[in-house]
Amino acid sequence: MPSEKAPVCAVVGVGPGNGEALARRFAADGYAVALMARKPELTARLAAELPAAKAYTCDVADAASVAAAFAAARADLGEVDVLLVNAGSGVWGTFEEVSAADFEQAWRVNALGLFLCAKQVVPAMRARGKGAIVVVGATASRRGGARAAAFGPAKMAQKGLAESMARHLGPAGVHVALIVVDGVVRSPAAQGRSPDRPADAFIAPAGIADIAASLVRQDRSAWSFEVEARPFTESW
Amino acid sequence: MPSEKAPVCAVVGVGPGNGEALARRFAADGYAVALMARKPELTARLAAELPAAKAYTCDVADAASVAAAFAAARADLGEVDVLLVNAGSGVWGTFEEVSAADFEQAWRVNALGLFLCAKQVVPAMRARGKGAIVVVGATASRRGGARAAAFGPAKMAQKGLAESMARHLGPAGVHVALIVVDGVVRSPAAQGRSPDRPADAFIAPAGIADIAASLVRQDRSAWSFEVEARPFTESW
Amino acid sequence: MPSEKAPVCAVVGVGPGNGEALARRFAADGYAVALMARKPELTARLAAELPAAKAYTCDVADAASVAAAFAAARADLGEVDVLLVNAGSGVWGTFEEVSAADFEQAWRVNALGLFLCAKQVVPAMRARGKGAIVVVGATASRRGGARAAAFGPAKMAQKGLAESMARHLGPAGVHVALIVVDGVVRSPAAQGRSPDRPADAFIAPAGIADIAASLVRQDRSAWSFEVEARPFTESW
Amino acid sequence: MPSEKAPVCAVVGVGPGNGEALARRFAADGYAVALMARKPELTARLAAELPAAKAYTCDVADAASVAAAFAAARADLGEVDVLLVNAGSGVWGTFEEVSAADFEQAWRVNALGLFLCAKQVVPAMRARGKGAIVVVGATASRRGGARAAAFGPAKMAQKGLAESMARHLGPAGVHVALIVVDGVVRSPAAQGRSPDRPADAFIAPAGIADIAASLVRQDRSAWSFEVEARPFTESW
Repeated sequence: MPSEKAPVCAVVGVGPGNGEALARRFAADGYAVALMARKPELTARLAAELPAAKAYTCDVADAASVAAAFAAARADLGEVDVLLVNAGSGVWGTFEEVSAADFEQAWRVNALGLFLCAKQVVPAMRARGKGAIVVVGATASRRGGARAAAFGPAKMAQKGLAESMARHLGPAGVHVALIVVDGVVRSPAAQGRSPDRPADAFIAPAGIADIAASLVRQDRSAWSFEVEARPFTESW
Repeated sequence: MPSEKAPVCAVVGVGPGNGEALARRFAADGYAVALMARKPELTARLAAELPAAKAYTCDVADAASVAAAFAAARADLGEVDVLLVNAGSGVWGTFEEVSAADFEQAWRVNALGLFLCAKQVVPAMRARGKGAIVVVGATASRRGGARAAAFGPAKMAQKGLAESMARHLGPAGVHVALIVVDGVVRSPAAQGRSPDRPADAFIAPAGIADIAASLVRQDRSAWSFEVEARPFTESW
Repeated sequence: MPSEKAPVCAVVGVGPGNGEALARRFAADGYAVALMARKPELTARLAAELPAAKAYTCDVADAASVAAAFAAARADLGEVDVLLVNAGSGVWGTFEEVSAADFEQAWRVNALGLFLCAKQVVPAMRARGKGAIVVVGATASRRGGARAAAFGPAKMAQKGLAESMARHLGPAGVHVALIVVDGVVRSPAAQGRSPDRPADAFIAPAGIADIAASLVRQDRSAWSFEVEARPFTESW
Repeated sequence: MPSEKAPVCAVVGVGPGNGEALARRFAADGYAVALMARKPELTARLAAELPAAKAYTCDVADAASVAAAFAAARADLGEVDVLLVNAGSGVWGTFEEVSAADFEQAWRVNALGLFLCAKQVVPAMRARGKGAIVVVGATASRRGGARAAAFGPAKMAQKGLAESMARHLGPAGVHVALIVVDGVVRSPAAQGRSPDRPADAFIAPAGIADIAASLVRQDRSAWSFEVEARPFTESW
């Protein structure tokens, strides 16, 4: 059983790609990890496998669900030192294709989700004068593509919130950063759709986790806010 | 009395600053103007004064209200040729100061409001292969300031949507553009707060209307998407 | 013969596209126009055709040539009220394809050229507390494309200088702005290379001139710095 | 004594801040380090202290000097695996304060210097299908401040070149990245000018070196291009 002194990392949005990789990396780096996801299958498996990890059901678009998950994690593991926000679904489609419900749901998961989760951890971070919040963004965080009429504005709102938090919380010792995932993340499904594409033309989730781990270790005199993860083959 | 053939301009968010200036300018340029605002006092006065203008109650954050206002405007004036979206309120405050309700309300007015109004006018614009949508943005459309934790993400989502629409609808002949209002708009209240500041260090609403009028007249081979309105004295 | 009171516009880089269109537009708007180009054929023809226009040989990459051209224009027409900088050649090629000489020459024309021309007109503008400098930029002003290893850095340096000048000279009443030409400018040669592309999928030089004319007329409480000119069909 | 198989890192612009820190860090990480600077004092001292390091006189603004320094380094240490470009001087001043000579000199050091050094190392990197070039940029790489009329355009040109190279060379396995130094680097002189400012409100050169070391280790499926180094206290 890990010491109660292990730093605590909450990973929000633990799916079988970036979320799992983040959880594995921070567990390997000595964190007690709170695994949060809407569905319990993967988080339960990871909680059984990783040292000092626990699983929580959490729908980031639902304030009550977020509050309950973080309350439970706090009770189990203590205050969160590092928050990793990976929840980020959203439908693709042009303005004419997406509905107001699609538009709202993308915003709820990406922007409101970050807001609600950060509200759970910032008070303790501020009280201790340290902490880190790393958000997993996307190409759509930077540009509003024609087919990202719902997802793009949601990711831009998320980035805007991260940026506002970074400016406000930095002087309090809390590091907020955004990883811009600019490419297709490696997965059996993605690779199946492009069988001729070499594996490292897809972003390795472990590479994203490596960036997150680097960000969290940065000296506070030399913090980064926005960092890309992009395959060497990518056209950008 | 203007001909029934006058082009139609809907101004959403008619307050005593930019909204009124936009309405006056487009009326002067020969448009029949649909004046939309949550409160009826100013729009009623302007409707009485301007040729071919009509007032409609419209809360852009409410889908039913938007649908009713545009249905009435269509019945009265015909399909909208130019949509000017000026509705843009939002509380100021840091991440620690604003509530989830503030965060959501800012998004509703700025981002969802644009979405809902644009849904009302795009089908006819696409059918005719022409039309223009000009959105009034802000400094916060570009950067997430520390004290813009609610307003900034909302304006960034609005910009992201405008950009996605511009890319998607441009080839269909529909021009979507964003005016970045980067300074304090002139008003008795703003001038009262800074009595030593010269009048033209505040952005003239008529200057913003002039930019909107220029955008709408651009040759479609040379469209602008994002245009600043900034006082010559501004530090940026 | 025009009155000596006509405002003076210097157009630098008068070729048979944007430069000619800028000259024609500002002549039509009542300016005495100083036509500056490396080669005299087109400027001589335009000087003969346009009212109050005069031609000057000017190589913007050569300080002595710039000084001589502006000295002559000042003697003939008076101090310059509006400077339009259209000189902007540069080779295309990747980092491996371009030479240090290519890299330097692109910088000389685009960045140093703006510097040298602006040095000629800013003192009088500052003394009068008004004036405008409009620079014709390109997509490469914003992003360093793989095949723009020489042209891109030159255009970015040009933009950086324009931005620095805009911030510094704005409070002195001098408006500096940049037009981002984001597409292919219409010309017989360009149209010949893409015979199936409709004419208005190429940027009309007159559309660029229209943007420049709008910029110069802006109320100083609502100036724009950076404005795109992009065909409605463009993918961006 | 290190093996001849040690990877080779060339640090260009070795002064007593970032340059020295980069050299120390890459030496500690097992690189043979080519120390390049205009003046020999510091590089000679470091060459004596660090394992497998050698000093070369190099003025990056001078093509012959660059060619000679890299030829000597190649002869001594072998082809360069990692190029770190820290040369970056430039005068501060507004457009009215700086001369054409200042403007050109800043460009020579920052933009042409990167071009010339990269030309020396890219052929071998391409031949091996791997390598890294990390450029030390500045706030001025992103915005043209009023007082950066010479330095800003030079840093923007440098960034434009780095971006063009990143896009072109990435698919060949060569990672080009830019560190945006957004704050004041820690030094006795800087701290002396602001004696009340805490030490970690100045960027630690070791923090910049840490970012460079992280960039060089990134999996090529998840590369970053542009990464900030900014003190937690910085207003941005």
